[in-house]
Amino acid sequence: MTEMPFTSLQDGLATYKALTADRMRQYIPSKEPRRYLYDLVTEYPERGGKGFRPGLCIATSQALGGNLERVLNSAVALELFHNAFLVHDDIEDESLLRRGQPTMHQRYGTGIAINVGDAMNVMSIRPLMDNLQTLGPSLTWRVFAQIEHMVRETVEGQAMELGWRRENAMDLTEKDYLNMILKKTCWYTCIHPIRIGALIASGDDSDLDRFNRLGYYMGASFQIQDDILNLVGDVKKYGKEIGGDLVEGKRTLMLIYLLRDCTATERRRLGQLLTPNQEISDEEIIGQIMVLMHKYQSIAEARRAAQQLAGAALNEYTRLFSGVPDSKHKTFLQDFVFYMIQRKL
Amino acid sequence: MTEMPFTSLQDGLATYKALTADRMRQYIPSKEPRRYLYDLVTEYPERGGKGFRPGLCIATSQALGGNLERVLNSAVALELFHNAFLVHDDIEDESLLRRGQPTMHQRYGTGIAINVGDAMNVMSIRPLMDNLQTLGPSLTWRVFAQIEHMVRETVEGQAMELGWRRENAMDLTEKDYLNMILKKTCWYTCIHPIRIGALIASGDDSDLDRFNRLGYYMGASFQIQDDILNLVGDVKKYGKEIGGDLVEGKRTLMLIYLLRDCTATERRRLGQLLTPNQEISDEEIIGQIMVLMHKYQSIAEARRAAQQLAGAALNEYTRLFSGVPDSKHKTFLQDFVFYMIQRKL
Repeated sequence: MTEMPFTSLQDGLATYKALTADRMRQYIPSKEPRRYLYDLVTEYPERGGKGFRPGLCIATSQALGGNLERVLNSAVALELFHNAFLVHDDIEDESLLRRGQPTMHQRYGTGIAINVGDAMNVMSIRPLMDNLQTLGPSLTWRVFAQIEHMVRETVEGQAMELGWRRENAMDLTEKDYLNMILKKTCWYTCIHPIRIGALIASGDDSDLDRFNRLGYYMGASFQIQDDILNLVGDVKKYGKEIGGDLVEGKRTLMLIYLLRDCTATERRRLGQLLTPNQEISDEEIIGQIMVLMHKYQSIAEARRAAQQLAGAALNEYTRLFSGVPDSKHKTFLQDFVFYMIQRKL
Repeated sequence: MTEMPFTSLQDGLATYKALTADRMRQYIPSKEPRRYLYDLVTEYPERGGKGFRPGLCIATSQALGGNLERVLNSAVALELFHNAFLVHDDIEDESLLRRGQPTMHQRYGTGIAINVGDAMNVMSIRPLMDNLQTLGPSLTWRVFAQIEHMVRETVEGQAMELGWRRENAMDLTEKDYLNMILKKTCWYTCIHPIRIGALIASGDDSDLDRFNRLGYYMGASFQIQDDILNLVGDVKKYGKEIGGDLVEGKRTLMLIYLLRDCTATERRRLGQLLTPNQEISDEEIIGQIMVLMHKYQSIAEARRAAQQLAGAALNEYTRLFSGVPDSKHKTFLQDFVFYMIQRKL
């Protein structure tokens, strides 16, 4: 986050993250089996993720007049679920690095990593059950229903993406891509953190849908930027292997643009390069696809799409929050959106 | 199940299973993504598992005076969780066959299989939430707490077993093994299905612990018998590759007995054979370990342990259910225990 121009954003993320981590610690059992379970549950969270999801949830709730104590357990559940998702996602994507270190399955084997992810998923339930004491039965239940929907959307999005790779899909449109990341990324990264924050602040779930656009625009911009970083980023800052998405045949927006724009011959070659488990070297795959992406300016076009979405997010943010009293939490949310617009990729 | 001598047991399992499958169908979304998600969710359940867990839960609940409608959603959740667990377990164990067909990850790839398992886990939540309508908030919540505990125990047991294999553990005792299968198998296969059935019948969770021994004895006997079948069973009946446990280095009771009884030289050789990912052929691993198991009668000893546990289960069953009015559900439970004693392995 060193590139982040907004002190309030960095400070905010650090503060919300520390609060979430403190509370999370209470939910990590101090008992056996440690070595291949409970010691590993905190490994990804402690590698220093930015804590976007709990940050968004806590900031939204407090900006809307909610109380910190009431939202903290839900933030913990979001962060546990997110890290469980990363552990499984790294296996599904055959990723080598996460936050600058070997992925869980690279370090401990696929079996143990799957089980650690399963454990983190079930561990996200206890803090939600303990909401009963602070939120009462009705609100506890409604938060739970939000989480249930969130996980469901995420596995649906993940299935779409994995299916595209398996079938080596060559005819996807921008719309297909946006629908997929709405499901895979936006619901759990932005829409539900914001909805849950707002729900806990107001106790009212009758109009949570008003936040869906904001969360969608933010999440989609974020995902596209993240995919661009996979191609042009610095491995030290990014913490993942550069170009890994290309080797995995991941259907990013740039790739979809490229497949739309290239010649029939280039398209055939791309089909070979993207075929799962062929014998072409990683360097060759990355090199050849990057040359074509530069030729057709696919990355620049994806960058513009991300910027447009960030602009739309700002518009939604203003519409939703202009009437909300000023606070450091509101400033954090605003800076979050500004950051996405001004981010240098 | 053709070998089953008890008509009431076969009939009971078939009936409970059909009821569970009918209700489960209502919880499978009829929408995209189908091909790599919702079509696959029903694949394992439809391969014809025996439905022990929903059967135990429904039979216990009805034997104790409960109503079928009130227990059915929880039975669905148990069956979904069980099948999710199998999908992930097959990857963790690198199994090739499940119920006579290629495992999910063999057929669709590891990534898609992990995601299908995750989906089945979250799909087990909706029927539990819908309990609200039949059970009311308090009981719904208490069933939920049972499930949360169940999943937690299972991932702990799984972590123990995976850790043993990873570290090529050579000094395990019978007690270690029994503690591991209590966690990995008994809670979710027997103890919690019985507890949840009883809880829903009585509405009272003050004395559910009285069922723990019965469920433990049943589950442990069941797991040991299942492990024996992996070595001596018929692939057509058993539906898994014979000897697979040895190749995977799984710490079964027979193996623990063998490691306790063999000479130092044999022990060294076993250490090599059990080392994960070495170059020795499957046939050689299976052949050499089986010769030693015959020499030391390790399988016969495990068979006796399974019988003893089944006997203890019968004893517990009698203690708990002798005062319960006769019904076909009670007969089913009794036959279930008798079957485990008389099972020919």
